[in-house]
Amino acid sequence: MPKIDGTRLLADLKRLAEFGRYETGVDRPTYSEVDVASRRWLAEKYAEAGLDPIIDGIGNVFGRAEGATRRLLVGSHSETQPKGGWLDGALGVIYGLELARTFAADPALKGLGIETVAWADEEGHYGNMLGSRSFTGRLSEAEIDGYESRDGVSLRDALAKAGFAGKPRIEIDPDRYLGYLEAHIEQGDALDSTGRRIGIVDGIVGIWNWRVVLTGQQNHAGTTQMARRKDAGVAMVRLATQIHDRFAEIAGPHTVWTIGRMLLDPNAPSVVPGRAEMLVQARDIDTAILARYRDALFELVAQCDRAGPCRATVEELAQTEPRLMEAAFEAAIEATAERYVPGGHLRLSSGAGHDAQVISHKLRAGMMFIPSLGGVSHHWSEDTKEDDIVLGAQVFADAAAAILKAG
Amino acid sequence: MPKIDGTRLLADLKRLAEFGRYETGVDRPTYSEVDVASRRWLAEKYAEAGLDPIIDGIGNVFGRAEGATRRLLVGSHSETQPKGGWLDGALGVIYGLELARTFAADPALKGLGIETVAWADEEGHYGNMLGSRSFTGRLSEAEIDGYESRDGVSLRDALAKAGFAGKPRIEIDPDRYLGYLEAHIEQGDALDSTGRRIGIVDGIVGIWNWRVVLTGQQNHAGTTQMARRKDAGVAMVRLATQIHDRFAEIAGPHTVWTIGRMLLDPNAPSVVPGRAEMLVQARDIDTAILARYRDALFELVAQCDRAGPCRATVEELAQTEPRLMEAAFEAAIEATAERYVPGGHLRLSSGAGHDAQVISHKLRAGMMFIPSLGGVSHHWSEDTKEDDIVLGAQVFADAAAAILKAG
Repeated sequence: MPKIDGTRLLADLKRLAEFGRYETGVDRPTYSEVDVASRRWLAEKYAEAGLDPIIDGIGNVFGRAEGATRRLLVGSHSETQPKGGWLDGALGVIYGLELARTFAADPALKGLGIETVAWADEEGHYGNMLGSRSFTGRLSEAEIDGYESRDGVSLRDALAKAGFAGKPRIEIDPDRYLGYLEAHIEQGDALDSTGRRIGIVDGIVGIWNWRVVLTGQQNHAGTTQMARRKDAGVAMVRLATQIHDRFAEIAGPHTVWTIGRMLLDPNAPSVVPGRAEMLVQARDIDTAILARYRDALFELVAQCDRAGPCRATVEELAQTEPRLMEAAFEAAIEATAERYVPGGHLRLSSGAGHDAQVISHKLRAGMMFIPSLGGVSHHWSEDTKEDDIVLGAQVFADAAAAILKAG
Repeated sequence: MPKIDGTRLLADLKRLAEFGRYETGVDRPTYSEVDVASRRWLAEKYAEAGLDPIIDGIGNVFGRAEGATRRLLVGSHSETQPKGGWLDGALGVIYGLELARTFAADPALKGLGIETVAWADEEGHYGNMLGSRSFTGRLSEAEIDGYESRDGVSLRDALAKAGFAGKPRIEIDPDRYLGYLEAHIEQGDALDSTGRRIGIVDGIVGIWNWRVVLTGQQNHAGTTQMARRKDAGVAMVRLATQIHDRFAEIAGPHTVWTIGRMLLDPNAPSVVPGRAEMLVQARDIDTAILARYRDALFELVAQCDRAGPCRATVEELAQTEPRLMEAAFEAAIEATAERYVPGGHLRLSSGAGHDAQVISHKLRAGMMFIPSLGGVSHHWSEDTKEDDIVLGAQVFADAAAAILKAG
């Protein structure tokens, strides 16, 4: 079995975190100067590991293992959230590098190749999961034309400035790989709060989004008697309360839902709001539950609209489907984890999106989690114990070897 | 009895609306170029009417009737809301001008003086009711130092640019006047919806404002299970719903309340809100009812805080007290209205604030309303039938004469 080098692994993780360091975390948006520099550094590290490095036209960094006879693609994304954590994405990228080095150095694993990848823009600074979508043929040139950052920088300009424009975008050859493996911090506290050290991901939740709009009548908050009002803010808080109550009644064991964004118009203390808007989101591993949520939401909105005095409408926004992970890969990770930490592992779904869900359309895919301290995520204070980082890499390497051997 | 000139009145109202015309309304913020030009034009009109015009250090325009033996101060504010209506404020200012002309031309009214005023910044572009507060000694130099517009222009700079800086601010000599009269469009639809043509204002509501803050924990909307969440947005919509329900139960016959402003932080679709804030406002003519609202709000917030999982706090913001109008003035307006339009008038409270509430601390004060078509207010489409404008001026003039004669 492969033997990973924990010291080397931690050193490389810490070196990668220097690109854009912010407090104890990292601020490394996709295609920023530090992001481009970190991708060039990764290409060098891939080369040192004996891989052929390529940075493609969307910024994905690949380390190709040309001599292998069986291959796993292993990696994650390397940019971060604004003022994000040092492990979100980076952990899976450096695990890929460490596995490639370990496998290449072990004569017993000859012919079993780890190909590495650092995806671009999983975090959606320009568009969600650009790199993995490009690799799997799910990102058109027209879409690339249309994307821009929150600051109004077009994706085309960002790619040109990064030096990636004009390079070919590498698309998948599915026959090249046995599958795809991605390691990641959990970002929740299912592991941390129970003292488990390895998470075996059985699937990645689908995320369904809706926009609900209430239309009333803007009016003077002093001269408009209550009976005459069509207050879109009142309609919104009453409807939102009903949505939370109803969603709780029909939830599956792990469903989560959020009304994260609300807008009143004109949002002034002395004006009866004429318009209100809220974004409603539900996540579950089971499409049937998501459909139940959609039906319940549409019914509540229709009831609100019929009851008046405000009009209520609902519109479907971006929607991703739940993706199950490969059962054989789960079994391999679970068996390995049981060997290292008997009983100290957990099967769970990922509530966050990951490149693995995109890749799973083309390859068998598996994911492994290690704990996040306190479940903190998307914040610079995100962290994981070094022992857990090293243990995770060893379990991940052994599971990859088992998968490659099984073929 | 005085006989007003409807043609002249309408012509001057329309001329004043040319300063800052916007669609069929007016955009004339306080101390803007068009506002300053309109104040200079008003001073000229006051002079033509035989009054001594003065523009003071806060921008109030006065027309002094030095020769009179008994005087009423009559006017309103002359700036408008952004993209506001052509009559809000302007009506009362031009009524004052028309009354002054009519009284001066009528030998039977010799010695009964109408002094005119166009207050500055009732609409609060820099600070609410600056002009009437200055006149009544309720505006300090330190307050003037502190005010600025939404665009960040300091009041001091605006006054300097307008040419008003350095002039003295005129303060009231209460012995000079029998009282203060102000005419205004209703801004609601109590008159328009019932076909009444004159409103006799019995008082101006008090306005009490509170800020409610919910503090939870910001978190990832995918990886944070429901049981672990402290969602400030959920807490806010549930509390807001309870507030609306409870306030409806304890309302007086004319109480109005509004939650006009709500903020979620960070207000992103995939983030569990960590903080939420709402501004709650109640208006009533009865202080006891306002106190009942305050007590109910504080109790609901305390309950919410005790119940968890979010912290809830409430803070008192700006608060104006209800102000009753002078009963003798009401009686005079009502008797006059009954003569012109028997049964076609209505006693009502003003749900909006007016300079009359400030002046009422120093002088007996009365207000008269004419209808607003459809109750529209603070919008350029605000309007009133010309017949109602002319009738209103005649009733107002007769009532002023009756008040001056009664002494």
